[in-house]
Amino acid sequence: MAGLGTPRGRLFLVPAPLDFGCDVVTDVRQTLPDASLRAAASLAHWVCENAKTARAYLKRIDAVHPLCVPIQAMQIIELPREVHKKGDHDGSFDARHLMTPALQGHDMGLLSEAGMPAIADPGSSVVRAAHDLELEVVPLVGPMSLMLALAASGMNGQDFAFVGYIPSSPAERVARIRALEAQALGRGQTQLLIETPYRNPALLASLLQTLAPETRLATASGLGMPGETCRSASVKTWRAKGWECDKSTPTVFAIGR
Amino acid sequence: MAGLGTPRGRLFLVPAPLDFGCDVVTDVRQTLPDASLRAAASLAHWVCENAKTARAYLKRIDAVHPLCVPIQAMQIIELPREVHKKGDHDGSFDARHLMTPALQGHDMGLLSEAGMPAIADPGSSVVRAAHDLELEVVPLVGPMSLMLALAASGMNGQDFAFVGYIPSSPAERVARIRALEAQALGRGQTQLLIETPYRNPALLASLLQTLAPETRLATASGLGMPGETCRSASVKTWRAKGWECDKSTPTVFAIGR
Repeated sequence: MAGLGTPRGRLFLVPAPLDFGCDVVTDVRQTLPDASLRAAASLAHWVCENAKTARAYLKRIDAVHPLCVPIQAMQIIELPREVHKKGDHDGSFDARHLMTPALQGHDMGLLSEAGMPAIADPGSSVVRAAHDLELEVVPLVGPMSLMLALAASGMNGQDFAFVGYIPSSPAERVARIRALEAQALGRGQTQLLIETPYRNPALLASLLQTLAPETRLATASGLGMPGETCRSASVKTWRAKGWECDKSTPTVFAIGR
Repeated sequence: MAGLGTPRGRLFLVPAPLDFGCDVVTDVRQTLPDASLRAAASLAHWVCENAKTARAYLKRIDAVHPLCVPIQAMQIIELPREVHKKGDHDGSFDARHLMTPALQGHDMGLLSEAGMPAIADPGSSVVRAAHDLELEVVPLVGPMSLMLALAASGMNGQDFAFVGYIPSSPAERVARIRALEAQALGRGQTQLLIETPYRNPALLASLLQTLAPETRLATASGLGMPGETCRSASVKTWRAKGWECDKSTPTVFAIGR
């Protein structure tokens, strides 16, 4: 156990490029600032969603800034499976035991599969645990698909919500889309949502069938990758143009006015 | 007028460091990836909130990547005053006339005072205009205080809303805080809000007086600057610790469970 005088480690929230799981692999310097890469390269203790992809990302960082210890010598802990499935934002998972290295004085990193950990991804239980143990929490700058998509939508960025995934059963989905549209048009609060890529075409079809012709719909697909496309137009225009959304590219959808 | 064969320019959404208007000035490479700085250095046509601060930022970029033309030779257009005051997300300001350089084939940049344009800042009218003119819109990666704060809060990042500023009159403010708390506790939707820095202590006092003892409150102050501090704890703990929030540091507040 660390003595009273041992300085505690910090928890760094380490963003990842948005191309995880996609065919293309970009240079990490394209979307991560140098300070974030340097901080990541200095860490030997990690909590992540998936150790295999974490190691792949660490190799990409190593090509830019040599890692402080070989990957094989790092401690890389995966969040438990149940956290992947149902998320860890409801307080039911206590992650304090994962913070032992920090209590022993080691800085730690939290990593998710793409973008910022704990946003549209697991990890918030780890951040909460760090605060509860009075560890310093340091978020690092990197790509955040939701905000890139929001800025590129041209919709209200002074009042917005991210609602995650919406139901996939047809009746529930239509009801949810109508409720989101009411928020977007009535209060003027832009509504952001995502879908598992292979269901993108089905979600787009539901949106185009359900939303009113004058409602604005935006998509941001393949952010940070070659072929990145940001669209924003009325539903009427979407229908007239016949724009589509492919089933292999991560996409953020936005409903607004 | 450009002929049919003239390629149109693109609109780049250029993020700025979070230290605008603050005493400290960080190296832009700390929080902006190389691709964003290179893209910004290649632009000679800008739309911004304030030409003076835009020029100051361009000088900082020039120190890293030489600008394509001298700043004096750039076209830097300010958004009109009424847009600063009441925002431009309601569709009342038509920004298409600002896009003339892009129609003539020049890439353009949109810039706000800190962070990402069009998020918690003006600029969405310009993005909308670009889409309406079928120009390509390219959001660049950079620091986004709201998402850094959300990730660092340890609160729900699968369902969240940013509500901007809340009323400053005491009765309205209390009512609004209660409504936000109800959303945060009932639906589990994290609520993010901001305040003009000099009013931070008053907002914090209202939150600590109004929220229930078990409600979680988080702040992220001075993100990207020396002394950056992220706190997250129950209101009860906040009161017991006597944590404060200073009146000169940009701060994001979050209410959650």
